[in-house]
Amino acid sequence: MNSIEHADLIAIDWGTSHLRAYLCQYRQDNSLRLLATSYARGVTKVTHGFEQELFNCIAPWQAHYQHLPIIMAGQIGSSIGWQETTYLPCPISPNMVAQSCLHFTCRDQQLSIVPGLHCSHENNHRDVMRGEELQVLGWLAQDQAHQQGQHLICLPGTHTKWVLVDDGQVKLFKTAMTGELYDLLSHHSVLIQDAHGEFCPHAFASGAQYTLASALGSFIHGLFSARSKQLFKELAPEHATSYLSGMLIGSDVRAAINATEWSFEQLNSVSIIGNNTLSQRFSEVLTMQQIATTRYDVEAITLAGFASVYQQLLVGSPSSV
Amino acid sequence: MNSIEHADLIAIDWGTSHLRAYLCQYRQDNSLRLLATSYARGVTKVTHGFEQELFNCIAPWQAHYQHLPIIMAGQIGSSIGWQETTYLPCPISPNMVAQSCLHFTCRDQQLSIVPGLHCSHENNHRDVMRGEELQVLGWLAQDQAHQQGQHLICLPGTHTKWVLVDDGQVKLFKTAMTGELYDLLSHHSVLIQDAHGEFCPHAFASGAQYTLASALGSFIHGLFSARSKQLFKELAPEHATSYLSGMLIGSDVRAAINATEWSFEQLNSVSIIGNNTLSQRFSEVLTMQQIATTRYDVEAITLAGFASVYQQLLVGSPSSV
Repeated sequence: MNSIEHADLIAIDWGTSHLRAYLCQYRQDNSLRLLATSYARGVTKVTHGFEQELFNCIAPWQAHYQHLPIIMAGQIGSSIGWQETTYLPCPISPNMVAQSCLHFTCRDQQLSIVPGLHCSHENNHRDVMRGEELQVLGWLAQDQAHQQGQHLICLPGTHTKWVLVDDGQVKLFKTAMTGELYDLLSHHSVLIQDAHGEFCPHAFASGAQYTLASALGSFIHGLFSARSKQLFKELAPEHATSYLSGMLIGSDVRAAINATEWSFEQLNSVSIIGNNTLSQRFSEVLTMQQIATTRYDVEAITLAGFASVYQQLLVGSPSSV
Repeated sequence: MNSIEHADLIAIDWGTSHLRAYLCQYRQDNSLRLLATSYARGVTKVTHGFEQELFNCIAPWQAHYQHLPIIMAGQIGSSIGWQETTYLPCPISPNMVAQSCLHFTCRDQQLSIVPGLHCSHENNHRDVMRGEELQVLGWLAQDQAHQQGQHLICLPGTHTKWVLVDDGQVKLFKTAMTGELYDLLSHHSVLIQDAHGEFCPHAFASGAQYTLASALGSFIHGLFSARSKQLFKELAPEHATSYLSGMLIGSDVRAAINATEWSFEQLNSVSIIGNNTLSQRFSEVLTMQQIATTRYDVEAITLAGFASVYQQLLVGSPSSV
């Protein structure tokens, strides 16, 4: 960090497992320039309180910059976090999300937490999101073309989120527990003997094809093939996680294709925001189904999301930030 | 145990978690009369070798009866068991299963292990069974009517098996990891905070209805509702396992209904063989779909299976048993 650089805010992406802190400069084009990054423990791993965890993490920056506004997003705003924020109902505009931030003061600092989102599906079931809304805001702010028409964003992770954007609003979204199931089945089930085998593209494609092509609801009946294939030497034990990953992502993508909430025929390419490995795998499976994809760097999109929130806070109540 | 009673064999149901030993008398009507029961550790829990585990378990009986034939079934015949038996291809008759037992001698005792079964599905995927084949044999021997026409047997457990029987033969079967998924998701996922909450019939039915009625492949997209319902106070945390159980069994039953390998319209009532709790739950969900069920006591059916194997061994090579 160059101490003579001007800084405007500290952005905190504080999830279950990790805290990622970004020291940022706000630019006239409504983007953030990243000056420095710092890491600390996630919400479920903090042992001596959120306040201490945060201020330890950003102490060097505070020594230079004193009272920078701090904007936080993620599980830190959940019922197990520092201050609980609401789940705002969809459809919703990015401005409304930013304007609904929870503000509080701690150690003479102004802190804001971005709220989560919820939506209702046709079957009256509700879905929730906390953390990913920031990336959606960032994606919307990235390109003027994202503000018009319908777009589908896929955010793979522990819980995949499929987000439908309509004329610049977050219309609705669906959650799939794909990553969590992968983790559970890799480490605790009879399917996998070697949870750290090397990735095998062939086994991955084979798993994806199985669930993409499978009959009605047969995921729960098909999963066991990861074991029977090993018993009959059709799948090497060290490639079983690749096959499982393919099955799970195939099932997730198939459900997205069959979702009644949107139609791929009326959408352009699916925007994928996530880590490189997962984004690549989702992209491959969507491509197997002749669906075009565009990938975005998750950190750049996250910073764009913070920029969008910061801009609204500036507009909304300049004195508070 | 009354030491003056005549005994003919020791039947051993030796699975992953438990060893159940039955001292039996063979009767003219080809049934077994249970004289005594003994328990020991399952295949994955044996610490000082299978031989010692078995002979410790049956030592009191041996003191009285000396050289009784011992018939074993279950994971004891798998690659992690004592002696590995094959997976016999379906369709197969009960006689062929019994005649394909693996025989060996240990401590001057004649031991036999019942082999497993495998089958191929339309999509060229294979499925395997080890242990449940004994119950299928027992079910077939229970009633002359079971020998004719098509019947579907459901064996709920860690891995549900759906077995299609056709004119007295085991035609094919499908495995669903329902019980294992329930266990993993109850103890290791974000869905459940209280893994030991009391059973709630309403939450169970609600979960089952969700997956029974759900659109194409939406299991992986619907699972998260177990969490969002709790967040919105639509589901009490202590009833979340009931809801999850309903979702999983609903998904399993839905897949069975949509299976291309059989048609419920051409089947009579589904025979359910399993523990009381699980059997009751599967029966309820099938009944919700207007499918009749008949429940069988799992221990009685298991003993009938051992009787069927013992009879064949007597016929096949009387000198060896």
